[in-house]
Amino acid sequence: MAGSTFGTIFKITTWGESHGKALGVVIDGCPAGLPLNEADIQRYLNRRKPGTSNITTPRKEDDEVEILSGVFEGRTTGTPISLMVKNTSQISKDYSEIASYYRPGHADYTFDQKYGFRDYRGGGRSSGRETIGRVAAGAVACKILEQLGVQVTAYTRSIGNVSINPENFDRNAILNTVTAMPDYEADKAAVAFLENARKSSDSVGGCMECMVEGVPAGIGEPVFEKLDANLAKAIMSIGAVKAVEIGDGTAVSSRLGSKNNDSFRIKDSSIVKQTNHAGGILGGISDGDTIIVRAHVKPTPSIFQTQQTVNKSMEEIDIQIKGRHDPIIVPRAVVVMECMTALTVLDAMLVNTSSTMDGLERFYK
Amino acid sequence: MAGSTFGTIFKITTWGESHGKALGVVIDGCPAGLPLNEADIQRYLNRRKPGTSNITTPRKEDDEVEILSGVFEGRTTGTPISLMVKNTSQISKDYSEIASYYRPGHADYTFDQKYGFRDYRGGGRSSGRETIGRVAAGAVACKILEQLGVQVTAYTRSIGNVSINPENFDRNAILNTVTAMPDYEADKAAVAFLENARKSSDSVGGCMECMVEGVPAGIGEPVFEKLDANLAKAIMSIGAVKAVEIGDGTAVSSRLGSKNNDSFRIKDSSIVKQTNHAGGILGGISDGDTIIVRAHVKPTPSIFQTQQTVNKSMEEIDIQIKGRHDPIIVPRAVVVMECMTALTVLDAMLVNTSSTMDGLERFYK
Amino acid sequence: MAGSTFGTIFKITTWGESHGKALGVVIDGCPAGLPLNEADIQRYLNRRKPGTSNITTPRKEDDEVEILSGVFEGRTTGTPISLMVKNTSQISKDYSEIASYYRPGHADYTFDQKYGFRDYRGGGRSSGRETIGRVAAGAVACKILEQLGVQVTAYTRSIGNVSINPENFDRNAILNTVTAMPDYEADKAAVAFLENARKSSDSVGGCMECMVEGVPAGIGEPVFEKLDANLAKAIMSIGAVKAVEIGDGTAVSSRLGSKNNDSFRIKDSSIVKQTNHAGGILGGISDGDTIIVRAHVKPTPSIFQTQQTVNKSMEEIDIQIKGRHDPIIVPRAVVVMECMTALTVLDAMLVNTSSTMDGLERFYK
Amino acid sequence: MAGSTFGTIFKITTWGESHGKALGVVIDGCPAGLPLNEADIQRYLNRRKPGTSNITTPRKEDDEVEILSGVFEGRTTGTPISLMVKNTSQISKDYSEIASYYRPGHADYTFDQKYGFRDYRGGGRSSGRETIGRVAAGAVACKILEQLGVQVTAYTRSIGNVSINPENFDRNAILNTVTAMPDYEADKAAVAFLENARKSSDSVGGCMECMVEGVPAGIGEPVFEKLDANLAKAIMSIGAVKAVEIGDGTAVSSRLGSKNNDSFRIKDSSIVKQTNHAGGILGGISDGDTIIVRAHVKPTPSIFQTQQTVNKSMEEIDIQIKGRHDPIIVPRAVVVMECMTALTVLDAMLVNTSSTMDGLERFYK
Repeated sequence: MAGSTFGTIFKITTWGESHGKALGVVIDGCPAGLPLNEADIQRYLNRRKPGTSNITTPRKEDDEVEILSGVFEGRTTGTPISLMVKNTSQISKDYSEIASYYRPGHADYTFDQKYGFRDYRGGGRSSGRETIGRVAAGAVACKILEQLGVQVTAYTRSIGNVSINPENFDRNAILNTVTAMPDYEADKAAVAFLENARKSSDSVGGCMECMVEGVPAGIGEPVFEKLDANLAKAIMSIGAVKAVEIGDGTAVSSRLGSKNNDSFRIKDSSIVKQTNHAGGILGGISDGDTIIVRAHVKPTPSIFQTQQTVNKSMEEIDIQIKGRHDPIIVPRAVVVMECMTALTVLDAMLVNTSSTMDGLERFYK
Repeated sequence: MAGSTFGTIFKITTWGESHGKALGVVIDGCPAGLPLNEADIQRYLNRRKPGTSNITTPRKEDDEVEILSGVFEGRTTGTPISLMVKNTSQISKDYSEIASYYRPGHADYTFDQKYGFRDYRGGGRSSGRETIGRVAAGAVACKILEQLGVQVTAYTRSIGNVSINPENFDRNAILNTVTAMPDYEADKAAVAFLENARKSSDSVGGCMECMVEGVPAGIGEPVFEKLDANLAKAIMSIGAVKAVEIGDGTAVSSRLGSKNNDSFRIKDSSIVKQTNHAGGILGGISDGDTIIVRAHVKPTPSIFQTQQTVNKSMEEIDIQIKGRHDPIIVPRAVVVMECMTALTVLDAMLVNTSSTMDGLERFYK
Repeated sequence: MAGSTFGTIFKITTWGESHGKALGVVIDGCPAGLPLNEADIQRYLNRRKPGTSNITTPRKEDDEVEILSGVFEGRTTGTPISLMVKNTSQISKDYSEIASYYRPGHADYTFDQKYGFRDYRGGGRSSGRETIGRVAAGAVACKILEQLGVQVTAYTRSIGNVSINPENFDRNAILNTVTAMPDYEADKAAVAFLENARKSSDSVGGCMECMVEGVPAGIGEPVFEKLDANLAKAIMSIGAVKAVEIGDGTAVSSRLGSKNNDSFRIKDSSIVKQTNHAGGILGGISDGDTIIVRAHVKPTPSIFQTQQTVNKSMEEIDIQIKGRHDPIIVPRAVVVMECMTALTVLDAMLVNTSSTMDGLERFYK
Repeated sequence: MAGSTFGTIFKITTWGESHGKALGVVIDGCPAGLPLNEADIQRYLNRRKPGTSNITTPRKEDDEVEILSGVFEGRTTGTPISLMVKNTSQISKDYSEIASYYRPGHADYTFDQKYGFRDYRGGGRSSGRETIGRVAAGAVACKILEQLGVQVTAYTRSIGNVSINPENFDRNAILNTVTAMPDYEADKAAVAFLENARKSSDSVGGCMECMVEGVPAGIGEPVFEKLDANLAKAIMSIGAVKAVEIGDGTAVSSRLGSKNNDSFRIKDSSIVKQTNHAGGILGGISDGDTIIVRAHVKPTPSIFQTQQTVNKSMEEIDIQIKGRHDPIIVPRAVVVMECMTALTVLDAMLVNTSSTMDGLERFYK
């Protein structure tokens, strides 16, 4: 089946493998009239680029985006926007060894079971490079949201046992630290922690968080298309994510109702919540408060220690993975989370434009 | 927009409000030839019925299901199966008070913001009774899965701070305890805990877990339609769920790769994983191991203490909620989780039937 | 798979068989705030009821609609509207004969081939009664369209060789003639023609047409979701329809471009077309002119002459169909065409509410 | 909204404008294991290329396809297949005139009304070049169908008043005549007719037909996803098509039931129909007979006579279109019809793989 399409109105379809000719995305359903150029998108792609620090793979990937359609005289036309990034640095090397066995923690085995064989070069379609299409499309979603007064901000919340200190929260740090932490001190500690892990040929998990500010109350559909349900899908679909939380998340399961309910109050003639345990969503619909999503990411499965596995001849073997791999996925995945969140929220807002007769009559009269 | 439909091939559409005439579901895409009768479905609906113990609301709801279409001579015909449960015990009472303000933790405010007004009787469409359609459809999915050798089992894992002890795990206890815990001892402790909460007019959160055994490796689509992504959506779409975990879930974010990877081994001439941190899913595709999903559920928002809120005249007021409400949602939500999981896994299996040329040629030759 | 759902935003799912307990439809995605009651819908259902004249089956079907959900205090709430019609006059008779063979021109054989067996009572799901759900949902669509200034009108254009005379076109005649022709004279001729066909135990085909007035220019999506493409699907999905035309339809294939192009002109400060060969749609998008759709309907396959066919034991046999059948489908199908057209146009208008940044910003600011 | 995606399982998304950088398509949901290379696709694209005769535009378009993803070691991997054709011969010319007014019969006016502005270079997204993506994807569908024993064949049936003679039907002629007629004599007459039209600066309409042989009985879903409904949508979505017929099509509306029903008979131990008025589809489901679809195509709207229209300043003006345009669309559209038919039939076959419990159990056991 088709698993590479996301969204109802703002619909994206990604394509491409780690070591193929190119990767890309087609955005269908982007409203007409948005000013858009390559730089708007490149800015986001650069945030997921590796090779920028010790804690990411030293592979060099240019990841230059090209707009192939859907933009005319600097504005979107309402027709499909095709975005492509060519694979330039894929070294032609010998993959025969990796082709023969299943790496623990990777999708080698499950792809073979599903399709009968797989593109084994660098993970093929299950590679992290698949997210290039998500980020390119998400950059466009972010630009639209900005014009509607909505801001999406993702960052690293913890790496191993090193967490950010909410009191040190500094939005500028996100783009200025190699960990994408909004806390310069935590960043320093996390870098040291990662250095140790790397020395013992190990990898590390982490947690990332995304805030969405400025979403009007009333966005999201009841029952199955709840805003939080679609956020959970969007974020869990990012490779290596194993848990998604909304608002206070897992903490609610050991809490009393009297401590978990957010009281409504009046502030500046508007209805607000006194606290935000709910993370900005009630009954699957935005309540006007900041939306909070959190994702827990497993350690990079490619580690440089000897591991046990089996090969396609059904033999148990010991393997030693080679190559260039990030010791942690999180810092580069932060922008992916930001983009998937933006895509989900924007699509929900577009879907919502026909929710009432009032809105409909206003549009057509 | 339409938010009440779930699934690609096995597609369900639920309808109905807490205090309307009836609630129901239409299943479209059920394979033809499945033996099916009302008792198959009633068995599941009975598990979500209230009034069976001290820890659920004393409201009496019969929730008797009727098959209106799609079954002929005891077997499904492949055409839509319409299932209906009439609302019988909805007392005509005065809702004018509740209509005037927004209950904390409920969807009253967000529905009003989205639609301009709302059916305020008992929560309307955002009521827990909405899950009747999910459970009725899920019962059919479970029956199909059983015939394919797949078993879905959900249970309560913790209530407040009372967790089950894995060493006491007893599958029979799930249907025999009021808490739906698979551990008679934990059940006793949890009941005591709930009794205390009720005495202080408070409510309690909890955690539920679902295991799926017997799913063949290779189920789930890459990228956006990953099996875990769709499970996350399915489970997060259940009212009051605030976090979803797959396998070791949140624990992975503070773990090293060498401890998190599951080694592949050979057992009885088959490929198996030595551990199951991954929860049965790698790269979004089932790996043949037991699938593990966990959901964290917030405390019932309806509590009997005085709470602060605002009314539709934009005044800050104190309210005292009346009525009949469960002090905890989890024990009755367990069967909803089981059903949503079954619906997701079955749909992924149906979608998978056309994934290879081999499979296709086998079907048509 | 699921074949019983239609629409993207205004999404309907029909269910029910000819001789089951009931038939119905769930509308999901209806804008909130529309005044709606049973009478609004009954009015349309009555137009497809049989037993009202010599040219329709003498079966009596009450077809009384019940609103089960989605309407509160007389207005739609934005949540699913469940509509049900109970089957009351289905006589329990012996179907063993009809179950054993395949009626020519019916779906008996193809249902058996697809599903392995079929509900053979009165055609089951392939019965004309399936359209009850379409008409009930279409009535709601028509009511919304009326509020937006759009009027949908279908009528019979020809029966056998008897066509309406455009010069006699009288809108009132549609609801006042047994043939649903907008021409009293043609109606008289057609009734005579039908009487002859009935006497020779034969049935007759016909052509129906639908006009949509008041659709603003700009509705419909390019490429695959063209307005005419979706109309073609909607109308061809009505049982017995074998051809669909837009505007001048089949006539264009033998025409010169200089005769087929519609010139644009200015009238009352608006852009209009001097002619309407295009039928109100250019490039799949409405051009502001009247939309014209035509459907050709085959003769009722149930005729009372001896016919040749085969039975399930693979024997060639002669059969003589009994029962109550319309000698022509068209007069009762006209309201089905009106409803499917309304559903298609309304859905395209709802989808269009997010086509430009201007529209989006107007909605959210 | 997104209008550029087609299909449920075999899902294609096309992109690109007439004068943009490139055009292409992403196929998501192609079964894994199909041998595929560029030549398989190029063969189909060459059939829609212009410049091959007097009756097509003298524009030269190379239309060379490149496979960017989804194929590994010569076989499809089950992941998205991205196909691209670069625009090479798009001359940078002055479009300011065409940008200022609305060409009769084109989508200039409706695109402006929908989106606020348009890419006016060569029709932008409403250009016939948009079909490149359809044909590239359709070529892959045709290859799969061939492996399943299904053959799709489209051809020109009439041009103006020149029709093929069924007695002269010669399959080889389709690819060997400039008109794509399966009748060398009719081809000669049609070419003469076209020459006359061209001399009078006019254009001509035509009719094309498609046969699908070898489809097993049982394909297609009831109600809205009928095989003929989806064929009608697919074919009507091709620019310039104004009518779609199945089997005997429009002829059925003036016919008696006794002449229109196809009797079932036994032949070589199989059930067959004695005639095929139905065009291979009963109740929306294939009956095992040849599927017949017909499309009526309007004359090319770009003619070289003086025409009346309006400009964006709301003035009535006379225009004279320049450039290179086919006097008839049909011969190049035949392969587009073949491809859209193949895509529709293949998708219906893929969807059908989970229609019965028997099929499902066979797949999973």
